[in-house]
Amino acid sequence: MKALFHIDERHKWPLLSMNIKNLLQVSPVMNIAVVINSEAVELFIKSTVKLEPNVKYYLCENSIKTRNLNPNDVLPGTEIVKSGVYQIVLLQNQGYAYIKP
Amino acid sequence: MKALFHIDERHKWPLLSMNIKNLLQVSPVMNIAVVINSEAVELFIKSTVKLEPNVKYYLCENSIKTRNLNPNDVLPGTEIVKSGVYQIVLLQNQGYAYIKP
Amino acid sequence: MKALFHIDERHKWPLLSMNIKNLLQVSPVMNIAVVINSEAVELFIKSTVKLEPNVKYYLCENSIKTRNLNPNDVLPGTEIVKSGVYQIVLLQNQGYAYIKP
Repeated sequence: MKALFHIDERHKWPLLSMNIKNLLQVSPVMNIAVVINSEAVELFIKSTVKLEPNVKYYLCENSIKTRNLNPNDVLPGTEIVKSGVYQIVLLQNQGYAYIKP
Repeated sequence: MKALFHIDERHKWPLLSMNIKNLLQVSPVMNIAVVINSEAVELFIKSTVKLEPNVKYYLCENSIKTRNLNPNDVLPGTEIVKSGVYQIVLLQNQGYAYIKP
Repeated sequence: MKALFHIDERHKWPLLSMNIKNLLQVSPVMNIAVVINSEAVELFIKSTVKLEPNVKYYLCENSIKTRNLNPNDVLPGTEIVKSGVYQIVLLQNQGYAYIKP
């Protein structure tokens, strides 16, 4: 099964991180993607946020540029996509279930 | 592809508007619907909110009536539906991907 | 049709309850499930919250344990599941449309 988490508010990060940990405990083979847009992209710039090893993290380029942040400063292990919301639509079309903590 | 945005809080409108603009830039042929319920319907009463030309806006009649607002005062270019949440279920059944900014 | 509501914040309960009432008025045969996790599980411990008769309420065991709450104190008529987010993925895979009030 496939799970897609969406975050666009910084303060939701602790809740989302715990959601992912709990989900992996119950279902270690779950495919998990996280789409990060709006102000939440700031969490991943010059960041020490801890990533889960087998989870995909997609950062919205629009949100990075709007905030005059440098795409070169994003946390290694994440991927920049042109549009976060487009990525959300794409992943749901690939069978990912949407979860907004 | 099809994208469905859901808004039930007034203050989420600027974020949702920007999400739609960005989505249309990346994918101009995307089918986009917006379902507006709860207090967010107030944004569309005697309103100067700017609508995107090819986006469908569905307003929840329940939410309008609960607030003693006049359905005749809704912004032209929007459509009133009996229940916003029912419309959300309907559209997801038609293949719309759900996004809650 | 099938509708899945997700709640992880206590203050969203009145909105979610009204959403369900309105949905059942428009579509009395709708299958409705509610997944409750994070702080929202507190609403269902030693609680007088009113449940709808034909709606399924799933409480996240992880969230109950993290808060040192007693699973024996949950409101009758609800069901405890190992992980709320896993239940969300499961239900979407069974055709439930996701709604986050």
